Amino acid sequence: MSTGTLVLLRHGESEWNAMNLFTGWVDVPLTDKGIGEGKRAGQLLKEHDLLPDVLYTSLLRRAISTANIALDAADRHWIPVVRDWRLNERHYGALQGKNKAQTKAEYGDDQFMLWRRSYDTPPPPIDAGSEYSQDADPRYANLEQVPLTECLLDVVKRLIPYWDDTISQDLLAGKNVLVAAHGNSLRALVKHLDGISDEDIAGLNIPTGIPLRYDLDENLRPLNPGGTYLDPEAAAAGAAAVANQGAK
Amino acid sequence: MSTGTLVLLRHGESEWNAMNLFTGWVDVPLTDKGIGEGKRAGQLLKEHDLLPDVLYTSLLRRAISTANIALDAADRHWIPVVRDWRLNERHYGALQGKNKAQTKAEYGDDQFMLWRRSYDTPPPPIDAGSEYSQDADPRYANLEQVPLTECLLDVVKRLIPYWDDTISQDLLAGKNVLVAAHGNSLRALVKHLDGISDEDIAGLNIPTGIPLRYDLDENLRPLNPGGTYLDPEAAAAGAAAVANQGAK
Repeated sequence: MSTGTLVLLRHGESEWNAMNLFTGWVDVPLTDKGIGEGKRAGQLLKEHDLLPDVLYTSLLRRAISTANIALDAADRHWIPVVRDWRLNERHYGALQGKNKAQTKAEYGDDQFMLWRRSYDTPPPPIDAGSEYSQDADPRYANLEQVPLTECLLDVVKRLIPYWDDTISQDLLAGKNVLVAAHGNSLRALVKHLDGISDEDIAGLNIPTGIPLRYDLDENLRPLNPGGTYLDPEAAAAGAAAVANQGAK
Repeated sequence: MSTGTLVLLRHGESEWNAMNLFTGWVDVPLTDKGIGEGKRAGQLLKEHDLLPDVLYTSLLRRAISTANIALDAADRHWIPVVRDWRLNERHYGALQGKNKAQTKAEYGDDQFMLWRRSYDTPPPPIDAGSEYSQDADPRYANLEQVPLTECLLDVVKRLIPYWDDTISQDLLAGKNVLVAAHGNSLRALVKHLDGISDEDIAGLNIPTGIPLRYDLDENLRPLNPGGTYLDPEAAAAGAAAVANQGAK
């Protein structure tokens, strides 16, 4: 049996993407544009005959809604669904709820980029009493410790063992897998798949709402390193927009 | 550990409900009214503090969408989901796609009610080549035989073993379970829960979009026989409307 195809999908634009706020684990909904991106993603899956057999999502509404909308548009609303916190966005610590442009103005370019793109330096931890903390959120009741902040390395540490145990197994069993997740959880996964160094991952940006296809060999090494966006032009524009966040 | 609470939810109005067509396994979407019913159902769950720990749905879009919308409105979009064809609507055989009022006029009241409400007489089987057959539908590829028609007894036979193996176990483990399904799959389940006779089940109608709560003892016998609708007035009006189908 040949290895299944992997499709990564970053959620469509959320309300906080549109407002240029650090989001992390705060559970914000999609904008109308984000809903449209989800539909378009589903149409692209259908047009490319990339029909998933199983869906993995985070526990966050913007990924769950994007996947629901995309699968409905692709007539695959009925496939099995697995949700797990390990696909969540990076926890942005004390930055959650803060405006990116204001943060950049207040702390300077270097500190801003360090928080956004350093591999192993997390932002300051969030206060337990903050309205943007997930301390009391029932969906994380089974976690020993709800994160107070995370760097990308922390995301790699929680995500890759989960990948090995679950998503990998489905791919090796020949299933096509759709992973609907977030900018940084997908960066962590792409880093692992493509063997990107701790330094080079800083330059990788994943646009919202455009399916990214990986064809994998029997060792789950990409046959198309870097993956293939189903809409390459929109992806290039979207990645540039992500890189430029904080400028406005 | 006490037994979890069971909530049954018939999907909101579908396009074919609105057009008064027999639907069965044909995969039609919700109307705007149906989408609104899903939202209202989620608000009712939240108001009554009936927050599900796990969702079971059929493989049909109208139940899946209703559940997605309701869970989103109840802030429970992140719970685990299980989908299974055994929660599907009754297969309506050759009647699928036919207008209820026209069928009643053509075949007469007795035959019409026999097809709709007889416990053990299925409608004529659907032609394999019919546009409303599910013979080639990939979601049923693992079934030994896709049904060509079903009576309510057939639904009971496929549903109750599944209930015993899965939903029952979650309830006994103390989980609150939401089952988003269909008029006849829910009638089959209610018949089992309340011990309704083969004759009396003909008189039971379940309205769309109103959560029906069952509190169960440790043997999964209802402490509130017949269940409790979260909006009893709307439920009574809705059940009367279902009973009256075919009249218009």
